[in-house]
Amino acid sequence: MTDLTSLTAHTAEELDAADPLRALRAAFVCDDPETIYLDGNSLGRLPAATPDFLGQVVRDGWGNGLVQSWETWISWSRRLGDRLAAHTLGAGPGEVVISDSTSVNLYKLAAAALDARPGRRTIVADIDDFPTNRYILQGLAEQRQLRLVTLRSDPDQGLGTDTLGEALDDDVALVVLSLVSYRSGAFLDMAAVNSAARRAGALVLWDLSHAVGAVPVELGATGADLAVGSTYKYLNGGPGSPALLYVRKDLQRQLRQPVWGWYGQRDQFRMAEEYDPVDDVDRFLVGTPPLLSLAAIEPALDVVERAPVTALREKSVRLGEFAVELADAWLTPLGFRLASPRDPARRGSHIALAHPDASRICRALRSEQRVICDFRPPDRLRIGFAPLYTRFTDVRDGLARLRALVESRAYENLPVDMPRVT
Amino acid sequence: MTDLTSLTAHTAEELDAADPLRALRAAFVCDDPETIYLDGNSLGRLPAATPDFLGQVVRDGWGNGLVQSWETWISWSRRLGDRLAAHTLGAGPGEVVISDSTSVNLYKLAAAALDARPGRRTIVADIDDFPTNRYILQGLAEQRQLRLVTLRSDPDQGLGTDTLGEALDDDVALVVLSLVSYRSGAFLDMAAVNSAARRAGALVLWDLSHAVGAVPVELGATGADLAVGSTYKYLNGGPGSPALLYVRKDLQRQLRQPVWGWYGQRDQFRMAEEYDPVDDVDRFLVGTPPLLSLAAIEPALDVVERAPVTALREKSVRLGEFAVELADAWLTPLGFRLASPRDPARRGSHIALAHPDASRICRALRSEQRVICDFRPPDRLRIGFAPLYTRFTDVRDGLARLRALVESRAYENLPVDMPRVT
Repeated sequence: MTDLTSLTAHTAEELDAADPLRALRAAFVCDDPETIYLDGNSLGRLPAATPDFLGQVVRDGWGNGLVQSWETWISWSRRLGDRLAAHTLGAGPGEVVISDSTSVNLYKLAAAALDARPGRRTIVADIDDFPTNRYILQGLAEQRQLRLVTLRSDPDQGLGTDTLGEALDDDVALVVLSLVSYRSGAFLDMAAVNSAARRAGALVLWDLSHAVGAVPVELGATGADLAVGSTYKYLNGGPGSPALLYVRKDLQRQLRQPVWGWYGQRDQFRMAEEYDPVDDVDRFLVGTPPLLSLAAIEPALDVVERAPVTALREKSVRLGEFAVELADAWLTPLGFRLASPRDPARRGSHIALAHPDASRICRALRSEQRVICDFRPPDRLRIGFAPLYTRFTDVRDGLARLRALVESRAYENLPVDMPRVT
Repeated sequence: MTDLTSLTAHTAEELDAADPLRALRAAFVCDDPETIYLDGNSLGRLPAATPDFLGQVVRDGWGNGLVQSWETWISWSRRLGDRLAAHTLGAGPGEVVISDSTSVNLYKLAAAALDARPGRRTIVADIDDFPTNRYILQGLAEQRQLRLVTLRSDPDQGLGTDTLGEALDDDVALVVLSLVSYRSGAFLDMAAVNSAARRAGALVLWDLSHAVGAVPVELGATGADLAVGSTYKYLNGGPGSPALLYVRKDLQRQLRQPVWGWYGQRDQFRMAEEYDPVDDVDRFLVGTPPLLSLAAIEPALDVVERAPVTALREKSVRLGEFAVELADAWLTPLGFRLASPRDPARRGSHIALAHPDASRICRALRSEQRVICDFRPPDRLRIGFAPLYTRFTDVRDGLARLRALVESRAYENLPVDMPRVT
């Protein structure tokens, strides 16, 4: 064990030195050298430029420009959407907007898709998808008296291609899937899913929350229909920053979402009597966007755009491989099990480690060892790698502290009940 | 005219000196002495404490606390809602949350109310209500094949009590009204409307956007059912700050909103398979709130809470009376008409002045005279009085500049087409 520790220690420093993205860590606030941030990934770090940029929006835009600043701000949902589309989503201009929460956007697009397939009565989703996605689809199914089929994906390996194929028939209106599973990190084949659904005549709505900014997303090239996703994970847009919403260009005029707000209205400030939505992606907007939270996405994109997604992915895979290697050597003997696909090509930018005491271990790791990762029910420790700022030494040191904690059993004096949040 | 000008000049300074709220203006950023801000009211001013408070949330909360800060943040929608309820809404703890946009909140509550009156097929709204409210109800009516009755309110005087009374029958499920009209400023009698609707067995959903922070709102005492409203107008929460949502305590368990997001889920982080909403007002939450925009509401409430709403109302009425007096003397002779109720008891905190050239006048007033008020179609200049910071001298000087502009006809070289925004 001692030998491996020192060998790995050596390798981590070498890997960091050879990392072509290593300079990007300086673009983030990392003031506390004692804390190791392996959140997986509920909140990306604060870009160093964000406080000043936000301060400027607040003081100059709001304080001095006052209501006149809306002449500029009104296009930010679309402008930032276009930037995101081009760099990280493989989508075209006019296909992405940023507004509302991921949950609200999922509701709008799922409802619009169901309306566009009126004869079909089935929604297909993943039993292991993020709770809000499942709940929203349960609601739509109940409200419209549709059938919600939840695919029994493997909790460690994700959804098998066959499992989806068997569920696709001519009654399926909509398939909702996460490109990267929030828990296991399983990374689906977007092109294959899109093709299979298209053959069955169903629309696919992707949740990109744990994918965007960490894995390649090719909405255009794979013929994706619809997508939503969080901007506060690997994109570092800040807590609760508004979500992305993508609708393929040729679908936009065919789809009408159920929340007919004035931000989707043609010539919005004419304030006409009847709702008459614009023909483009703005028809999926609803109300005034939370401008300060939206603005924080701008400096975040400035950082993300400094690296091609292929480079982010390459580093992310290496960080993940390194973590799996260490977990095999250090943690499996202590009762952990890798609860993620072992093949890096089938994994996003985090891994899950199953352990019966994962909840207490996660809490003790934060309080005793200053290592931040997440607990996910029922028994998973989720460990994330943000290629813009996570170092190989962070992975090594974080897992070394995890090993030390579990060896010492210091978590056993914590109560068993689950943490309230995050 | 010269006499009146000097007389009024004298009076405005006196009124400011006698204003018991005059010290509160210092709680706002008012750096540009040349600009007169009579926005009516699309965006309240920046509280002086907001930049530092937000900076702290960004640097300490996000930058250093990282994902762990959600342990605190997760309750802010509810905590700030409780503060707002107590001070400005006459509502109790656990009746108000702040999240999503006003439009999304209106959709959620309107849909929930319609579900709660299943036999009834009519929605009643005001033809002159703010566009997004009308559009969202048009959408719900179309989706559920209901009848949307739009009351023909007087564009200057607002909705007559009889007009509503005639529309109320036992087919009405829901009445949606703005307490203060976004254009005319007409201020409805909440108690009378609530009583009439209750007698008819209908629910009432109030839009408080142009009311909250400027006029007394007594949701509890008047037996109000439901309400939504903007926090970025007289509350000064910042551009697009998330909206308030109120549901009377005893209605909460009876109502279920259509967007089944995980923020409404019982024991949210247990991530259970089936949606099972909490019994309280949190069941009307959906997804992760835009935390930075939400946070800016905190220092804004600190200022609002420094004055009782009765004092805000008293000053607002005096500002309005002063403006009407000046408009009668200076602007009526130039072709303006007061397009708001003349009785201050029936008016909120803004007035509308109709003029055939209102659009060009509004733009020229901003660019030539540095007076900011709003144009509202078809021909209204909307002039607002924010009792926390508007001075009587602002009203006098703003209207004097308006008079000078119209006398000089300097706006006539502008194109006639309407402004794009605000």
